Amino acid sequence: MADKVPVGILGATGMVGQQYVRLLKNHPWFSIAYLAASPKSAGKPYEEAVDGRWHLEDDIPERIRSMPVGVASDVSAAAARCRLVFSAVEMEKSVIAALEEQYAAQGLAVVSNNSAHRWTKDVPMLLPEINHEHLSCISQQRKNRGWEKGLIVVKSNCSIQSYMTPLYALKKAGYVVDRMFVATLQAVSGAGYPGPSSFDMIDNVIPFIGGEEEKSECEPLKILGSVKEGGIDNAALPSITAHCNRVPVVHGHTACVSLGFSGEKPSLSEIEHIWNTFRSEPQELSLPSAPDRPIAYRHERNRPQPRFDRDVDKGMRVTVGRLRHCSLLDIRFVGLHHNTVRGAAGGCVLTAELLKAEGWID
Amino acid sequence: MADKVPVGILGATGMVGQQYVRLLKNHPWFSIAYLAASPKSAGKPYEEAVDGRWHLEDDIPERIRSMPVGVASDVSAAAARCRLVFSAVEMEKSVIAALEEQYAAQGLAVVSNNSAHRWTKDVPMLLPEINHEHLSCISQQRKNRGWEKGLIVVKSNCSIQSYMTPLYALKKAGYVVDRMFVATLQAVSGAGYPGPSSFDMIDNVIPFIGGEEEKSECEPLKILGSVKEGGIDNAALPSITAHCNRVPVVHGHTACVSLGFSGEKPSLSEIEHIWNTFRSEPQELSLPSAPDRPIAYRHERNRPQPRFDRDVDKGMRVTVGRLRHCSLLDIRFVGLHHNTVRGAAGGCVLTAELLKAEGWID
Amino acid sequence: MADKVPVGILGATGMVGQQYVRLLKNHPWFSIAYLAASPKSAGKPYEEAVDGRWHLEDDIPERIRSMPVGVASDVSAAAARCRLVFSAVEMEKSVIAALEEQYAAQGLAVVSNNSAHRWTKDVPMLLPEINHEHLSCISQQRKNRGWEKGLIVVKSNCSIQSYMTPLYALKKAGYVVDRMFVATLQAVSGAGYPGPSSFDMIDNVIPFIGGEEEKSECEPLKILGSVKEGGIDNAALPSITAHCNRVPVVHGHTACVSLGFSGEKPSLSEIEHIWNTFRSEPQELSLPSAPDRPIAYRHERNRPQPRFDRDVDKGMRVTVGRLRHCSLLDIRFVGLHHNTVRGAAGGCVLTAELLKAEGWID
Amino acid sequence: MADKVPVGILGATGMVGQQYVRLLKNHPWFSIAYLAASPKSAGKPYEEAVDGRWHLEDDIPERIRSMPVGVASDVSAAAARCRLVFSAVEMEKSVIAALEEQYAAQGLAVVSNNSAHRWTKDVPMLLPEINHEHLSCISQQRKNRGWEKGLIVVKSNCSIQSYMTPLYALKKAGYVVDRMFVATLQAVSGAGYPGPSSFDMIDNVIPFIGGEEEKSECEPLKILGSVKEGGIDNAALPSITAHCNRVPVVHGHTACVSLGFSGEKPSLSEIEHIWNTFRSEPQELSLPSAPDRPIAYRHERNRPQPRFDRDVDKGMRVTVGRLRHCSLLDIRFVGLHHNTVRGAAGGCVLTAELLKAEGWID
Repeated sequence: MADKVPVGILGATGMVGQQYVRLLKNHPWFSIAYLAASPKSAGKPYEEAVDGRWHLEDDIPERIRSMPVGVASDVSAAAARCRLVFSAVEMEKSVIAALEEQYAAQGLAVVSNNSAHRWTKDVPMLLPEINHEHLSCISQQRKNRGWEKGLIVVKSNCSIQSYMTPLYALKKAGYVVDRMFVATLQAVSGAGYPGPSSFDMIDNVIPFIGGEEEKSECEPLKILGSVKEGGIDNAALPSITAHCNRVPVVHGHTACVSLGFSGEKPSLSEIEHIWNTFRSEPQELSLPSAPDRPIAYRHERNRPQPRFDRDVDKGMRVTVGRLRHCSLLDIRFVGLHHNTVRGAAGGCVLTAELLKAEGWID
Repeated sequence: MADKVPVGILGATGMVGQQYVRLLKNHPWFSIAYLAASPKSAGKPYEEAVDGRWHLEDDIPERIRSMPVGVASDVSAAAARCRLVFSAVEMEKSVIAALEEQYAAQGLAVVSNNSAHRWTKDVPMLLPEINHEHLSCISQQRKNRGWEKGLIVVKSNCSIQSYMTPLYALKKAGYVVDRMFVATLQAVSGAGYPGPSSFDMIDNVIPFIGGEEEKSECEPLKILGSVKEGGIDNAALPSITAHCNRVPVVHGHTACVSLGFSGEKPSLSEIEHIWNTFRSEPQELSLPSAPDRPIAYRHERNRPQPRFDRDVDKGMRVTVGRLRHCSLLDIRFVGLHHNTVRGAAGGCVLTAELLKAEGWID
Repeated sequence: MADKVPVGILGATGMVGQQYVRLLKNHPWFSIAYLAASPKSAGKPYEEAVDGRWHLEDDIPERIRSMPVGVASDVSAAAARCRLVFSAVEMEKSVIAALEEQYAAQGLAVVSNNSAHRWTKDVPMLLPEINHEHLSCISQQRKNRGWEKGLIVVKSNCSIQSYMTPLYALKKAGYVVDRMFVATLQAVSGAGYPGPSSFDMIDNVIPFIGGEEEKSECEPLKILGSVKEGGIDNAALPSITAHCNRVPVVHGHTACVSLGFSGEKPSLSEIEHIWNTFRSEPQELSLPSAPDRPIAYRHERNRPQPRFDRDVDKGMRVTVGRLRHCSLLDIRFVGLHHNTVRGAAGGCVLTAELLKAEGWID
Repeated sequence: MADKVPVGILGATGMVGQQYVRLLKNHPWFSIAYLAASPKSAGKPYEEAVDGRWHLEDDIPERIRSMPVGVASDVSAAAARCRLVFSAVEMEKSVIAALEEQYAAQGLAVVSNNSAHRWTKDVPMLLPEINHEHLSCISQQRKNRGWEKGLIVVKSNCSIQSYMTPLYALKKAGYVVDRMFVATLQAVSGAGYPGPSSFDMIDNVIPFIGGEEEKSECEPLKILGSVKEGGIDNAALPSITAHCNRVPVVHGHTACVSLGFSGEKPSLSEIEHIWNTFRSEPQELSLPSAPDRPIAYRHERNRPQPRFDRDVDKGMRVTVGRLRHCSLLDIRFVGLHHNTVRGAAGGCVLTAELLKAEGWID
C-alpha cells in the first residue's frame, strides 16, 4: 500500500461516494487515504456517518469503517493526505466549481462527477475510451491558472453513456453520424439518494428529468470535440434530440437510439463488427478498471435489459442490441450501461487510472 | 332493457373481455345477452369460468355471474341471441378472420379487438374521433360479401393511441405532419393475461414487443387514409419510426413523440389550443362512452404519468404534456392513454355506439 | 351549501390532506371553508401550494384551486371560518397536541389524524363502527378543559384497521379474543410523502416501520376499552404481538392474523357469517361515508389483495379472506383496508359525520 | 477435470437448473457431464434449449453452450455419463418419485430439489448445517431397495430456510423451542419461471402460495428428527403456524418469526452470540460451497432486506436481524435467505459436497 497513490473521496457518504469506496477497496494503484462529506458527517467514523444509508450489497470495507470523515470544504486536510480526489459532493454548482479549483490549486488532481466544470473550456470532459487525447488540455489548464501539479478532469452526464461509445466507434471507423434521436429509460439511482419517491415510481413512469435532455443533447459535442490551443472545440455534429424518462429500475440506463449518417453508410453487419471489435486506450494500457470489451452486441431480440446486462464486465461495458434499419434516419438500436458504475464512479476511477498511466499524476 | 341492443362478447373471460363486461354493465344502449370463450369454459357459469382470473377492481356484475358461457366458434348460438358481437378471442389469426366473417354472414355486426381484419381493404380500422367517415365502406363491404345486415369493423393496435388523436387534431387544423419518431413505454396489461412474468419485469424494462413496432408504423396510415371505391386508401404520410418498450406499469401506454411538419408549422401555443379544443363526432353525437375531452393538455412539467392520468374521463381521454421544440424535427411531446379502456374495450364500445347512432345497426 | 357545516383542513397540502380535499368535494353535510398548511404555503392559492405534489388521480376540485392557504398555527383564522377542522399537520407531537387544544378552546371540533392525543385519557380514539359510544367522553372532556363547544376526537394508527373491525365483530357476537399474532405488509403511502425512496423499495421489502409495532399492540386496547368517569379505561385483552413490514404497494395494508379465544370458540362458518352480516352505528345512521358493508369475506383462496380490494365500497370496507384454523392459536385470516381512505381521511370524515349525526356539532 | 466427479443436471433448462449450471461452472470437485430436460429440448445444444429463457446475469458457461440436452426420463443415458444427478425436473410428483428411484437403482446418487421423496421415511431431507447425521439412513435405504451404490437425498422447501438454521442453532445450544409463528414474504423466483404474472405483482402482494404453509409447518419436524432403525423419526416440536405471502421481490425470502421456549430461555444477547458463532459440519469440512458464516446478525434496525442481504457469502448465508422480545411467545426476529441459491441449487450442491466428503459417493 505504501506505493499506492493516496486518494480522497469528497461526498463519500452519498450514492456515488459509496460506489467509490467499493471500487477502490482493493485497487492495485490507489489507496483511500481520506474521506470527506458535509459538516453534519464531519468527525464521525465513516460507518457512523453512513448509518442507515449504506446502499450497497457489499459491506463497508473493514479498513474504511473507522476512518474519520472530514469536511469537503476543508481543502488543506485533503491536500495533506492525498494526491488525487474524486469529487462527488452535492452543493450549489458555483460553490462546487470554486471548491474544485481550490483543490487543484493545492496541487491535487480532481476527477469530478459533478457538472460544475463540464463547460469550462480547458477542462476535459472525459470518457476514457473516446477522448483520452483531450487530457493534453491539462498543460494549458495549468498554465492558465498557475497550477503546478493540480488539475481538473470531469465526466459527462450518465444519461449519454449508453450510446456515446457505440456512436464514437462508428466515427472512429470513418462514418459520420449527423443526426440522432434518443429516448432514455433511466434508473432511479441516477437521481442520487433518496431520489424519486416510491409512491411516484410504483406502477408508474415519469417522462421528465430536470436538465437531462439539455445535457444529453449538448455534452456529446464536447466529448467528440477536438483540442485547439489547449481548450476543447466542440464538434458540430451530430444534432441530437433527447426524450428522457425515469422508470422503476434500480440501476441501468436504457437508450432507444435512431441515427443517421451523412456520406457513406455502414451495413448492419459491419456496425455489429465495429462494435464487437472496438478497443481503445484503456484496453491498450490494460487499465485495472477497463472493461475487456467496452461494447458488446447481444443477438437476442429482447436484449439488452437492465437487470440482466448492467453488471457484466465489472459494470463497465455498454451492451447493445436490436440493431435494425430506421424508416426516418438510417439505423436503430438499444444501448445500456450501469449508470452508477460505468456512468459515474467506475468511469471516474478509469479516468484516474488513465491520468496515472499517462503520467499526469505521479 | 327490452329496448336495448342485445350484444355478445367473444373471448369474454380474457383481460379485454372482462373490460367489456365492466363497461357494458349499465350501458344505456347495449345489454349483454351472450358470452362466449374457448371450449374449456363452455357450459360453465361466467363466475366459474373466470374463477381465479377475474382481473378487475370491480366485482363481476350480479346478472352476469350465472350467465352460461358459450363457445366462440358456435356462430349460430350468438346469432340467435345478439345483434352485435365484440370480438376479443385469442386464436390463430386466420381462424379469427374466418370466424368474424361467419358472424357477419349471420347478420351480426362484429366490432373486433383483433388484428385479423386490420388490413382487409373494405374493413374500417376505426378510431371514432378520427375516421368515423370510414364507416361508409360498410355498404361496399356488404355488397362485396353478400351480407345484408352483417358488418365488420376493427380497432387499431393500442400502442398508437397515445399519439393518433393528437396527430389527427393537427391534421384537421390544416397542418401536415410528414415525419414522426415515437418511443413507447407500454404497460404489461397490453400483453393480455398472464403476459410478462414478474420475474422479468421487477427492476427491469424489456426493449422489445413482438410485432408492435411494425403495427405502430403502418396502422396510422390506414386510419388517416381515405375512402375510395368502398375501400380504404392508405395515407402516404407521416413516415414513422417506432421504438417499443415494455415497462413495469399495470395500465397506461406512454409515448415520447417528435414530429415534423411539411409546409406551415403551428406555434406551440396554437398546438396546445388545437388539442384542448378538439371535438369530433362522438362528442357531437354525445355518445355514452365518448370522453368529454378527447385530448387534454397538462402543464406540469412531469406529466402525463400513467398512474395519475390513465383513468381520467372514464379512461377514454388522451392526456398530453411536455410540448416543446425538437432539434431534429419540429416539436416534441408526451402522450398517454389507458390501453385496455381507450385502447381496447372502451374504444370498441365507442365504435359500437357510433354504429348504432349512425344507423348501421338497428 | 349555505346549510352545510363549514370545515377546515389543517395540513391540507400533504398526502392525507389531499384525500380530505377529494372526499369532501361534494359532501352532503360538510363544505370546505378553509385550508391551512405550513408557513411556506401560506398566502398561496391551493393549486400553487400543491404544485408538483398533488398525488391523486382526480384533479383538484375547481372551487378549491384558487382558495388561499392559511397557516395551521393561526387558530383564529380557522375559528372565524369553520365549525370543525380535520387535523393532518406534520409537526412535533407536543406542538400538535397544544395546537389541537387551542383549536378546541376556540370552539372548534377537531377530528385528528395525528397521534398526539391518542393517549389523552378523555380523548376518544374513534373507529366509528366499533367504539361510537366513546363519544360520550366529550362531555367530560369539555368540563375538564372549560370548553363550551370545542372537542377533540382522534383516529388510531392505520396499521391496525385491517383487523380491528373483524376482531370487534367477534367480540360483539360474544366471543373473547385474548391473544393475537399479526404480521402486516404495509403500503408506502402510509409513510406520507415522499415516504420511502424508490431505490429502497424496488425489488425489496423493509421489515421495519418506526413505532408501528408498538402502536399496533397498544392502540387496540384503548379502542376496545370502556368509558369510565368520562375517560377511557383500556381493555386488558387481547395480548398482541405485531411484525410490521413495508412492501412495494401504493395503497392498501394487508395483515396476516392468528387469533385465540378464551372460552367458547366460534366455528369458521359462524365467523364468516358474523363478519358478513356485521353492521354498526354508521350503517344504522346511514352516514354518507359509511360503507354498505364494513366487513366482507371473499372466498377466493388468494384474496384479499391490495390492488384489487382496496377501493371497494368507497375505499371504506375491510376485506377479509383465507379464514382457516391455526395450529398455535385458534384461527387465521388475512385482512385488508385502504390505509389513506378507511385508515386515514375517510375514517375521520366518517367520525365527523357521526359527531354531526349525534349532535356533538351543530 | 479428469479427477472430478461427473454430474448431471435433470431439469437443466429451468430456473433452478440454470442456477446449477452457474454454480457448477468452476466447481473444484464436480464437473457437468450431462444435461437433461423435457422431450421438447431433447437433442438441442443447451444454448438453443434455453434460448429466450436464460434468466441469469452471468452468461452461459462456454463449455456448456454446445452440450446436447438429453431427456430426463432416459435413465441409462445419465447412468453412462454421471455418478451423481441433481434433480430439478418439473413433472407429476408420482412420476418424479419413480424416476428418481430408477436413477438410484442404476447406481447414481440423486440429490433432489423436488418434494416427491420428502416424506419417504428412509430418504433424508437434508439441510447440511443441521441434520448431516441423517445421511446415515442411506445404508438402510440401500438395503431396503437393493441398491448398491445409488442413493436419494432431498432438500426441504425453500420457504423454511430463513429460520431453520437460526432455530437449530438455538436447539444445539440446549434451548427447546416449542412454538413458532412465521409470516413469510417470498420472492417470485420461488415459483419457478414464468411464475406469477407481472400484472398480478405490480403494486400488489398475494397472501397465498399453494401448499407452502403446510410444508412450512411439517418439514421442519423431519429435519429436526432423529435417525431410528435407518429411518427418520420426526421431532414432535416445535408447533408451527405459517402465513405465506408472495411479494414483488426477485430473489430472497424474508420471514418474520416469533418463537417460544419451554424450559430455560436464553437472553437476547446470548441468542445473538449463538447465531454469530454457529458453525457446523460444512464449515468444519471446509466444503467448497459452505458459507463462512451460516448465520450472521445485523444490528441495523431495518435489516435484513432481500436486495441488500441475499447475495452475501455466495448467497449461502442466512441473515437475521431485529431480535426483540415477543409479547405472546418469547422472542421475535426477521430472517432472510436467497431462495434459489441457499434454498435450492446452492443447498443441493452443498449436500452433494457433503456426500462426497463423507464417502457416500466415490
